[in-house]
Amino acid sequence: MKTLKVGEFLLMRLQQAGIRHLFGVPGDYNLQFLDSVIAHPDITWVGCANELNAAYAADGYGRCNGAAALLTTFGVGELSAINGIAGSYAEYVPVIHIVGAPASQVQSQGDCVHHSLGDGDFRHFSRMAQEVSAASAVLTAENAVQEIDRVMGEALYQHRPGYLLLAVDVAQAEVTLPLPSSAITSLPSAVDAFATAAEAMLSSAQHVALLADFLAARWQLQSPLAALRQLRAIPAATLLMGKGVLDEQQPGFVGTYAGEGSTPAVRAAIEETDVTVCVGVRFTDTLTAGFTQQLPTEKLIDLQPFHAVVAGETFSPLSMAEALGVLEPLFRRYGERWAIGGMATREDTSDDDAFISQHAFWQAMQRFLLPGDIILADQGTAAFGAAALRLPEDVQLLVQPLWGSIGYTLPAAFGAQTAQPQRRVILIIGDGSAQLTIQELGSMQRDGQQPIIFLLNNEGYTVERAIHGAHQRYNDIAQWNWTALPQALSLTGEAQSWRVSETVQLEAVMARLANNQRLSLVEVVLDKEDIPPLLRKVTASLHQRNGG
Amino acid sequence: MKTLKVGEFLLMRLQQAGIRHLFGVPGDYNLQFLDSVIAHPDITWVGCANELNAAYAADGYGRCNGAAALLTTFGVGELSAINGIAGSYAEYVPVIHIVGAPASQVQSQGDCVHHSLGDGDFRHFSRMAQEVSAASAVLTAENAVQEIDRVMGEALYQHRPGYLLLAVDVAQAEVTLPLPSSAITSLPSAVDAFATAAEAMLSSAQHVALLADFLAARWQLQSPLAALRQLRAIPAATLLMGKGVLDEQQPGFVGTYAGEGSTPAVRAAIEETDVTVCVGVRFTDTLTAGFTQQLPTEKLIDLQPFHAVVAGETFSPLSMAEALGVLEPLFRRYGERWAIGGMATREDTSDDDAFISQHAFWQAMQRFLLPGDIILADQGTAAFGAAALRLPEDVQLLVQPLWGSIGYTLPAAFGAQTAQPQRRVILIIGDGSAQLTIQELGSMQRDGQQPIIFLLNNEGYTVERAIHGAHQRYNDIAQWNWTALPQALSLTGEAQSWRVSETVQLEAVMARLANNQRLSLVEVVLDKEDIPPLLRKVTASLHQRNGG
Repeated sequence: MKTLKVGEFLLMRLQQAGIRHLFGVPGDYNLQFLDSVIAHPDITWVGCANELNAAYAADGYGRCNGAAALLTTFGVGELSAINGIAGSYAEYVPVIHIVGAPASQVQSQGDCVHHSLGDGDFRHFSRMAQEVSAASAVLTAENAVQEIDRVMGEALYQHRPGYLLLAVDVAQAEVTLPLPSSAITSLPSAVDAFATAAEAMLSSAQHVALLADFLAARWQLQSPLAALRQLRAIPAATLLMGKGVLDEQQPGFVGTYAGEGSTPAVRAAIEETDVTVCVGVRFTDTLTAGFTQQLPTEKLIDLQPFHAVVAGETFSPLSMAEALGVLEPLFRRYGERWAIGGMATREDTSDDDAFISQHAFWQAMQRFLLPGDIILADQGTAAFGAAALRLPEDVQLLVQPLWGSIGYTLPAAFGAQTAQPQRRVILIIGDGSAQLTIQELGSMQRDGQQPIIFLLNNEGYTVERAIHGAHQRYNDIAQWNWTALPQALSLTGEAQSWRVSETVQLEAVMARLANNQRLSLVEVVLDKEDIPPLLRKVTASLHQRNGG
Repeated sequence: MKTLKVGEFLLMRLQQAGIRHLFGVPGDYNLQFLDSVIAHPDITWVGCANELNAAYAADGYGRCNGAAALLTTFGVGELSAINGIAGSYAEYVPVIHIVGAPASQVQSQGDCVHHSLGDGDFRHFSRMAQEVSAASAVLTAENAVQEIDRVMGEALYQHRPGYLLLAVDVAQAEVTLPLPSSAITSLPSAVDAFATAAEAMLSSAQHVALLADFLAARWQLQSPLAALRQLRAIPAATLLMGKGVLDEQQPGFVGTYAGEGSTPAVRAAIEETDVTVCVGVRFTDTLTAGFTQQLPTEKLIDLQPFHAVVAGETFSPLSMAEALGVLEPLFRRYGERWAIGGMATREDTSDDDAFISQHAFWQAMQRFLLPGDIILADQGTAAFGAAALRLPEDVQLLVQPLWGSIGYTLPAAFGAQTAQPQRRVILIIGDGSAQLTIQELGSMQRDGQQPIIFLLNNEGYTVERAIHGAHQRYNDIAQWNWTALPQALSLTGEAQSWRVSETVQLEAVMARLANNQRLSLVEVVLDKEDIPPLLRKVTASLHQRNGG
């Protein structure tokens, strides 16, 4: 019988979930638990400049690592982080949020202590957290083992955040191993009925297409998807949110599907079919130019995390992995009857303008990418511009188009690089967005990270200008001296910065960055009303939906 | 019959509440309303770098202006701001939080749109807001007039935040004036019973003391308190949170009361009495060195915003202003029997150390202060050091010791200077705290503000080192190049910066700043374990309460 502290047990469970780093900000209600973190041989503390940034960093880490953990302090810390947690909830990233809390006795007495609202109610914030968590618990010495396993189990299963309120005394309380194992019972799978229904559709089809999205990435189905496509190179596309889940160099890949925002070739390939197989797809406003997808239910085989729908009939429970396993023999049996996809051609024109346009920037970026890169593109011109890239092999793209919290990608890049120190991280972010979360440039340098940052300076909130108020003062921002910032945010770093406004300058800097060995920031000066084509279609739709 | 848009009506009500500025960050769900803001002749839009900073700025503005307003966008914006709103709730600052939301029809259809959780439920965030709001409303075209008046009325009455969810179409909907006036009915006041009880205590007392705190400041009772003290110069003190509400140059002022954390003279003056009159006092852990105040109920006359308690008996409803009105004739009648307070003597020793100590810093700060200054001192060594200052006349001190969200004061200084452009603003903040919210240095410069910032660089979270883990890595932070930051955060600003580590340097810079005409940042290098005396007592108590 081994005894250990609740805090140590929690760290053991994090480690067993593959989590090797804990992001956060210290506070006096979590300092003792932090002692256990520092003492832990396999979990590294990663302090961030503020809690929202820490939540974003954990989210970015979770997208690259499968799961993540975040530590904040009661009230002030957890609420600062909660927007980041909400983004992880909306976009299915399992982040275990541990909140250090006042001692149990302080709480039960209702003392008027710091970081409380002063009204003796210590449950305000856990109630708020419940709105954006798969599961949550107020831990006690008695329930800690069961509740940690329940909350983490739910969070990992649902791929969404879990919330653990950990009072200072509870973190230090002792629990005893061996621990009870919880027997998992599951309902019989609907796999056979799904197979029959899917076969009925696929056996008679001539035009079959594949549309994959972010949920397939969250459930890590890249390999089975690639295997399926090797059986038959049918036309395949992703939505922007799931870009990267399909190998874009594999035959049949046509591009990014966005309803009426797609290129005509992509739209035809995905919509003009007998059967479209959707894997982990969610249609949201900004990804479909305002819900303009034309995909009638009767020709859809729609795979979701916990169920599938075939021509309107639902099969449940059924995981996406199980359902893909069913499709594999059907692709083998019927695939050769299906039309293959035509490889999309990218128009790689050189830009005649001396000054950098959005078009020229993305052309140059296309040439700059290497297999294995991790790219983060912030909501705005960056994410919608990235939609038109053809990604080299094993490139991961991080975007946040559903939650759409600007500034997210800068700390997320810090988290992604922490998860994958050997891979090249490229961050593309606008000036308006970068202002929200700039602090983590300092954390990147403290930890010796070497991301390449393209800061698109278009003097404010260009994506909002495109929606409404192109010339209104509220879309302007404070003008910063961007190239001075990396050096200002580190005493010891050796960051390098450039400011480029001409295409030849951009290309020269990119050539130098081919062997990048330090944090590099490239301020790219763009016209403040120049936006990528997909974004133009999307913002026109948003403008209309918001009442003009 | 005049018609106007809901958004315009809301702006009219803000203006009538004395609010002349709207802080926030634009987002596509609030852009149309922003058009009305820009068009408004008397309300100025003040864009901030992110929403948490905007909420802090609004709070600082509210403390200097009586009330404030904040505009964010749905989900991402409002949740980023919610920690700031919670601070305004805990510490009684009426901030009207307006949140731009998707169109009513989008919400009623449950569309999967950006900034939602994607589950069709558009009430997650308004439910969260209810935990930290005096009142909240989901506005419709039909209820807007009544609900705006109800929420603003409650917020202003309770001196706490109000939440208004304003869909894009509702902001544009038309309402008709004249508007129904709501008749306010109030219960009969308990003023007479209170007068009898208070007189029974005061008429037989010899030692009477006055203890005032932040709620007296929120309800703007500075003048009646000063008038009362002119009748008799009884010993008077504030808690740290209310520092500035009493004129510290007026006879009888003894200093900052903090239970066992007080100096012996202050403690004796407040505790060794027949009657202690408390005005707007809340005893919280950090302000009382862990609830060590010795003030038995039977000798307390305790004035709270909506009631009073005399020797344990509660009188309600009774406002603080009414109750002070009752005390005035009693002071006049019985005051001359009461002992007067001895003026506290400040030991203004010069410091022999060449390097700047906390002691030397606060001595120099004492000499630097001028009547009319607004001082902001961040939670940590700054706020607790400020407790020992004797404030010149009409100085306002902003601290946040109950909510205690580090980084708060930097954006709050931006808000305070916006509210009071003619007054000198002095910000004292640690390096760990300033990292959370540094962006607003850019907004200050964009708006031509000239605050003086003392950045106490003690290499990390010194207040937390004092509580626990003095040498633990988690109390370290990324090292920034502080003096380069003001210039990096503005293209056009003319900020100036210094780094000082010796006392003579600090004094030389302060002499130059006597006629400050630009944003000035002074990085003050301090030992990372040097803390003010009050903080040492407080942190010892917190260490114990957190289990050591």
